[in-house]
Amino acid sequence: MTQSTSENGYIQVYTGNGKGKSTAAFGLSLRAVGAGKKVFFCQFVKGKIYSEIEAIRQYLPNITLKQYGRGCFIYKKPDQADIDAAKEGLQEISEIVKSSEYDLIVLDEANIALYYNLFQVDDLIEILKQKHSTTEVVITGRYAPQELMDFADLVTEMKEIKHYYTKGVEARKGIEF
Amino acid sequence: MTQSTSENGYIQVYTGNGKGKSTAAFGLSLRAVGAGKKVFFCQFVKGKIYSEIEAIRQYLPNITLKQYGRGCFIYKKPDQADIDAAKEGLQEISEIVKSSEYDLIVLDEANIALYYNLFQVDDLIEILKQKHSTTEVVITGRYAPQELMDFADLVTEMKEIKHYYTKGVEARKGIEF
Repeated sequence: MTQSTSENGYIQVYTGNGKGKSTAAFGLSLRAVGAGKKVFFCQFVKGKIYSEIEAIRQYLPNITLKQYGRGCFIYKKPDQADIDAAKEGLQEISEIVKSSEYDLIVLDEANIALYYNLFQVDDLIEILKQKHSTTEVVITGRYAPQELMDFADLVTEMKEIKHYYTKGVEARKGIEF
Repeated sequence: MTQSTSENGYIQVYTGNGKGKSTAAFGLSLRAVGAGKKVFFCQFVKGKIYSEIEAIRQYLPNITLKQYGRGCFIYKKPDQADIDAAKEGLQEISEIVKSSEYDLIVLDEANIALYYNLFQVDDLIEILKQKHSTTEVVITGRYAPQELMDFADLVTEMKEIKHYYTKGVEARKGIEF
């Protein structure tokens, strides 16, 4: 493994129905911080304080955190409040993506926001096109639209091979959230 | 999402050729720490100090770290030193997995150790069978053997859909390592 001399940043997408998408984005943020990089981590749709958010707040204050969700998952049709929160988020990240302030920007669950039409993929790609050259952007969430995957530099599908949910295991604090 | 009242721990495997396996394990460790859990994170094969190791050492001293590798990747036939390091690791984790000392145990790149026959899958499964009931074990690395996937409770395949390595992007500090 050789270290690149180029300072170019790329666009990474983590999608699929398997476990590990947001978790990988958190791991990547931890790695970036270990290399002295500045991280902006935001979550769409989600608004609850999960254990990883707690860990970042407590131990990694050099990661800037934002949540653009209402604290609950969307099960049916999104409310106007869901749409407003996501649109406000998109507006905010538009400036952040353009600037050189952060080395790594994570848009956690942005794919879910797209899936629920909280904003449109063209609007997101328009923002990504204006990305500062050195900034790495990571987008997570299942149902990544094809257009976004075509635009991204790296796409990993987290594929569920076997899941203990089917055994009746419920989400556990510190493991799932 | 409901919180389970059960304190059972499970065995998770992250495999496949895509990016995000070790990174997800680091993210999971961060989440566990945020929930006040105790984490043992060890790496087989790898022995270099990557940025994520640096981040854990600097910011998350409550995660216990061990490396059972020689500081370089194995490209051809493993040396006796590679085998010795991995066997020593397996011996150590055998005690750790049985005890109730840690809530989350990560065996990073253990699949690679298996792939290179540094130890055998039956030996690993024998250890996992003696796992303390409350302990969660996460095993990462490409080429997870079928026997291990059959034994595990959760398996995610990180599938490479598109990778910037093919564009000539080299591994970058703080992003890839």
